[in-house]
Amino acid sequence: MQTIGYAARDTSGELSPLKFDRRDDLAANDVAIEILYCGICHSDLHFARDDWGMTTYPVVPGHEIVGRVIATGTDVSKHSVGDTVAIGCMVDSCQHCDQCEADQEQFCREGMTMTYGSPDAHSGGMTHGGFSKHITAREEFVLTVPANLDPAKAAPLLCAGITTYSPLKACGVKEGSRVAVIGLGGLGHMAVKLASAMGAHVTVLSRTPDKAKDADSLGADAFLLSTDEDAMAKAARSFDVIVDTVPVIHDINPYIPLLDIGGEISIVGQVGPIEQPNAALMMFGKNSISGSFIGGIAETQEMLDFCADKQVMPDIEMIRMDEVNTAFERLENSDVRYRFVIDMGSLALDQG
Amino acid sequence: MQTIGYAARDTSGELSPLKFDRRDDLAANDVAIEILYCGICHSDLHFARDDWGMTTYPVVPGHEIVGRVIATGTDVSKHSVGDTVAIGCMVDSCQHCDQCEADQEQFCREGMTMTYGSPDAHSGGMTHGGFSKHITAREEFVLTVPANLDPAKAAPLLCAGITTYSPLKACGVKEGSRVAVIGLGGLGHMAVKLASAMGAHVTVLSRTPDKAKDADSLGADAFLLSTDEDAMAKAARSFDVIVDTVPVIHDINPYIPLLDIGGEISIVGQVGPIEQPNAALMMFGKNSISGSFIGGIAETQEMLDFCADKQVMPDIEMIRMDEVNTAFERLENSDVRYRFVIDMGSLALDQG
Repeated sequence: MQTIGYAARDTSGELSPLKFDRRDDLAANDVAIEILYCGICHSDLHFARDDWGMTTYPVVPGHEIVGRVIATGTDVSKHSVGDTVAIGCMVDSCQHCDQCEADQEQFCREGMTMTYGSPDAHSGGMTHGGFSKHITAREEFVLTVPANLDPAKAAPLLCAGITTYSPLKACGVKEGSRVAVIGLGGLGHMAVKLASAMGAHVTVLSRTPDKAKDADSLGADAFLLSTDEDAMAKAARSFDVIVDTVPVIHDINPYIPLLDIGGEISIVGQVGPIEQPNAALMMFGKNSISGSFIGGIAETQEMLDFCADKQVMPDIEMIRMDEVNTAFERLENSDVRYRFVIDMGSLALDQG
Repeated sequence: MQTIGYAARDTSGELSPLKFDRRDDLAANDVAIEILYCGICHSDLHFARDDWGMTTYPVVPGHEIVGRVIATGTDVSKHSVGDTVAIGCMVDSCQHCDQCEADQEQFCREGMTMTYGSPDAHSGGMTHGGFSKHITAREEFVLTVPANLDPAKAAPLLCAGITTYSPLKACGVKEGSRVAVIGLGGLGHMAVKLASAMGAHVTVLSRTPDKAKDADSLGADAFLLSTDEDAMAKAARSFDVIVDTVPVIHDINPYIPLLDIGGEISIVGQVGPIEQPNAALMMFGKNSISGSFIGGIAETQEMLDFCADKQVMPDIEMIRMDEVNTAFERLENSDVRYRFVIDMGSLALDQG
């Protein structure tokens, strides 16, 4: 099936229409999807520009995908034509290693297949993502969007949602947990909403006093200005978990003493170095710094169900497909509250 | 009771005899001890030289103390005159906060009293440590040395032992766990022995090929030369836990990929900054870096009992009290295998 998407062709990261094929000789477990909405994640921008040195051009980014099933392979039992479904950051894995069997496909021993930018075992070439009209994937990686979840707003949950949900769960966040969130972008605003919905007391930590209002409107219980030394000293040992969504190199040492004994900082934003942490601070609070990477398929479904149940949804700004380059620029300048979602109805099959 | 110890008087860290008083108007829960042996920990050297900016002079270092009970307060039930007992890094805490109640006195909310260098709530002034002939402490902080544990070799267990035992237990090390140890000093050699005794498969990681023999003689199962890129690549994802005992700033990024999914690096050596860790490495393995700080009193007793049961003991070099300054120099040059222990019988009360 020929489809159309927006692809980056070089390190400028500039996106333009690309016609390409999605497999329509469906394998028995394949699900073919017409994409309705796709969120824009900061990693789409990094990938389009080859910031991580792993991009093969052309690449169609997008891994926050919500769509409608238009065809299914003969063995598909999970989804039917017409269902509202979703695809996140992965479309395949070996399905038999210890990690896949433990529902941790993101750590598949043979390497999971990313939704875009991975070798495509089924169709050859490289996988292409959700900035496109259609996608086909094996049913194990196609999630169910609950009926009471707004499909457009569901899209960012597939990356920003699960990336923050998974560490909150791994850190045992529950009713009464004391959670702080650093950075109020796509990830950070979801961390605030999800932790609140889990019953935690949520504090937004920021260097910018202006963010206090945003924190409040997102449902945070408190705001802590990290440049206010007195307030920071008073907040010592007051958090069980800090979710750090800052996407650039930064110093976490001011935050470690805010953790209670045994507390943890989970890093989900910066895909690269963080400034020298002081091990003494970690020792004297038995604290840890951990990395977390999206979540497995079962946990992603759990998160979607949780968000439907609690009506936790991102704040989005809907754009047309042909506005994506402007959106990339605005994203780079942190000029979005809090996630762009592309209305794929704005992309015509015969465009470009 | 007048006693004698070796004290540092200035930032040279040079130790010389000091006569001072230990309380002999025993409180009801006090235990008075004649010290038989005291291990030398690297932190004694740091403290003597005020490397951490927290030293009040004069200071008598030493927190790896084994001795014999010579008197007890009226309410003491745990120990009797003649018992072989031990004191580690702490001699007091509030005993009623959540941390104390959870047997984590090292994190006492009111601040635990260090064996030396802390304000002494009972006797006034500052506490003095084990480089001395006698010590008095409340019974809760006086440990029992099992009869089948060599008292001289037991001394280093009070810091080097518990400092490595506690993170191994916290990381769930058990039969079949895959443990790597970085740094083969006082802490590192105990980590190897303790992890082996717990049934783990233990690998020593070192930049120095010469350490392979030492690793073998300490009972390690394997040696991995960290400068051998092929061997390091082959060892990817092969450890559950890495205990990092390196006491200087260093780069842990080469080690993170050696951790299996969910694996942890526990930092117990460097009381200060570590080089910039790459959060991407941590994310893609769901790995964490944690700090650990000695252990609580109950766990320290558990460790002593474990070491007696398994006959796990440090390799020591016994010295006389008047050799301590040379020992400090040799310690600084890593010229000790693996722990100096001072024979306190070499210190006469009327010396100096």
